[in-house]
Amino acid sequence: MTEPLVLSIDTMGGDTAPGMVIEGLDMAIDQLSDVRFLLFGDETQIEPLLDKFPRVRAAGTVRHTTDAVLDDDKVAQALRMRRESSMRKAINAVHDGEAAGVVSAGNTGALMAMAKFVLKTLPGIDRPAIAACFPTERGQTVMLDLGANIDCDAENLVQFAVMGEVYARNVLGLDNPTVGILNVGVEGLKGNDSVKRAAGILQQSDLPMQFAGFVEGTDIGAGTVDVVVTDGFTGNIALKTAEGTVKFFGAALKQAMTSSLTAKLGALLTKPALNELKTRMDPRRYNGAMFLGLNGICIKSHGGTDAFGFAHAVHVAADLITNSINESIKEDYARISLSGEMEAAVAGAQ
Amino acid sequence: MTEPLVLSIDTMGGDTAPGMVIEGLDMAIDQLSDVRFLLFGDETQIEPLLDKFPRVRAAGTVRHTTDAVLDDDKVAQALRMRRESSMRKAINAVHDGEAAGVVSAGNTGALMAMAKFVLKTLPGIDRPAIAACFPTERGQTVMLDLGANIDCDAENLVQFAVMGEVYARNVLGLDNPTVGILNVGVEGLKGNDSVKRAAGILQQSDLPMQFAGFVEGTDIGAGTVDVVVTDGFTGNIALKTAEGTVKFFGAALKQAMTSSLTAKLGALLTKPALNELKTRMDPRRYNGAMFLGLNGICIKSHGGTDAFGFAHAVHVAADLITNSINESIKEDYARISLSGEMEAAVAGAQ
Repeated sequence: MTEPLVLSIDTMGGDTAPGMVIEGLDMAIDQLSDVRFLLFGDETQIEPLLDKFPRVRAAGTVRHTTDAVLDDDKVAQALRMRRESSMRKAINAVHDGEAAGVVSAGNTGALMAMAKFVLKTLPGIDRPAIAACFPTERGQTVMLDLGANIDCDAENLVQFAVMGEVYARNVLGLDNPTVGILNVGVEGLKGNDSVKRAAGILQQSDLPMQFAGFVEGTDIGAGTVDVVVTDGFTGNIALKTAEGTVKFFGAALKQAMTSSLTAKLGALLTKPALNELKTRMDPRRYNGAMFLGLNGICIKSHGGTDAFGFAHAVHVAADLITNSINESIKEDYARISLSGEMEAAVAGAQ
Repeated sequence: MTEPLVLSIDTMGGDTAPGMVIEGLDMAIDQLSDVRFLLFGDETQIEPLLDKFPRVRAAGTVRHTTDAVLDDDKVAQALRMRRESSMRKAINAVHDGEAAGVVSAGNTGALMAMAKFVLKTLPGIDRPAIAACFPTERGQTVMLDLGANIDCDAENLVQFAVMGEVYARNVLGLDNPTVGILNVGVEGLKGNDSVKRAAGILQQSDLPMQFAGFVEGTDIGAGTVDVVVTDGFTGNIALKTAEGTVKFFGAALKQAMTSSLTAKLGALLTKPALNELKTRMDPRRYNGAMFLGLNGICIKSHGGTDAFGFAHAVHVAADLITNSINESIKEDYARISLSGEMEAAVAGAQ
């Protein structure tokens, strides 16, 4: 008999928590064969919800907490003052080996800071990165960093490349994932120092990686590469620009489809097809940003998502755990370190 | 009688030049009452085209050139070696006062370097920026820099804000345009040093500007502000990410609309409405990036555009000239410099 998968849940994080969280866990159970939840949060709020979702009650253990991280908490403050919060206690459970991973829809900065402080980074990784998957013309692409690191040097980007490639290979199941560095052009001379040096390191190293060089913003939607590597400033803005563009396009499409009686009739006929498109583009299906590079699985759900989106974030956590992502990152990193390729390449590119 | 508007044209720049250029000028004439073109390029290629477009022949003067900038020319090389090129000669004509502005669909880097070298920057502007307009949920937004300056300090961003605001007021005709700095969050503590310091300067100064603080990637499509200020690295990637997303969404929409017979019938009925949407999103209607901050009007057309797109770039040039954009930037800058606000604000934020 296999051990059940144990996930630690910050039930108090998110705009409509804990209701959305508990309902999301109920939806998540459908696709998880043997899962247990440690439910950190205010038991007076959680208990009535468990009456409504008996499957979550059966799979869950409530761990009462007396404090919660607020959305406008400053990072340093949350780290110092919120030691009794549901978020912090949920992360502690991963550190203590009680849970294999944690999911929270709370304050991103606080979650990253606490997770880094409690779980520490994997060997060889200086800074964890936020990674997420997106739909593209060719399928899906993983992009990192999406906002954890505002300024990145070449070594950070190289580490992101390794982690992203491991994710694409082990979790997305791609045989030979391609990796590109986001830049303002594909020619070698373009870009800032960090991207140029990182590309140099990846080109010169014998890393077991299909490095495709530089890619541009248009390549994200096109799905030109499986892994897009970038600093957290650019990645966050690119991600949100894409989100805003989809929203704008969707609104303009809706407007067009209701602009005349004929268009409305046509819209009726195309509705099933458009619903499929809507499903494909549904941000909730891509909810669950991964904090890669931590010594433990930590997933950030969008704060404004609903139960369906939160359920997806739970699945992302389960996927990373089932596919032993951190073991793979450690193995890849140990191989690089042992061979000295990384150091040589870094030295060579300097 | 008013003087005709004289535009200097690099007829050899662009993937399908000079054919696309000459046809584009013919289309542009429709909306320009009294325009003259100086046509720099290979006369053996231009002359047969003028037979096909007699209106361009009537409005144009061919200036034969023996060289052209290539798309893969390195910037420094083009600057040194291409002094006889159609691009360089077309820029020279603006410097010499023969033309009020230049339009080219050639190599962006070479065009910017040559224009900066020949025309110099306006007083108070350290570096010119590439600016362009986009459709948004609320109308249109101008964004800059889109790739001229990879690394930008706070002063560069402040200068971009001033130029963008002048453009929105004078050319887009907005009474009180709002200006935002692109960042990873709207809170003051987020972002890199440049954006934080630039925001500090704009907040503390008494510039005649509606400064809205930080905006995020989602705000571009939403049209939250009229002017989005960013460094050239982020701006280029945001712009191309939006382009790629529109392309992906369009392809997915087309696929959905042809996925069944019913959908196809519906698509037929919604076609007029969707064509309107397509027109609204048509990148050719937004073609013509402005090099703001130069002592002369210089417009970069997309190299892969067609005649319709090139005609729009010509209209952008005419708009900037008609609205005396550079006079306004100079006036605004002089006012700031005279009042000493800028210097005080810069000093205060340091």
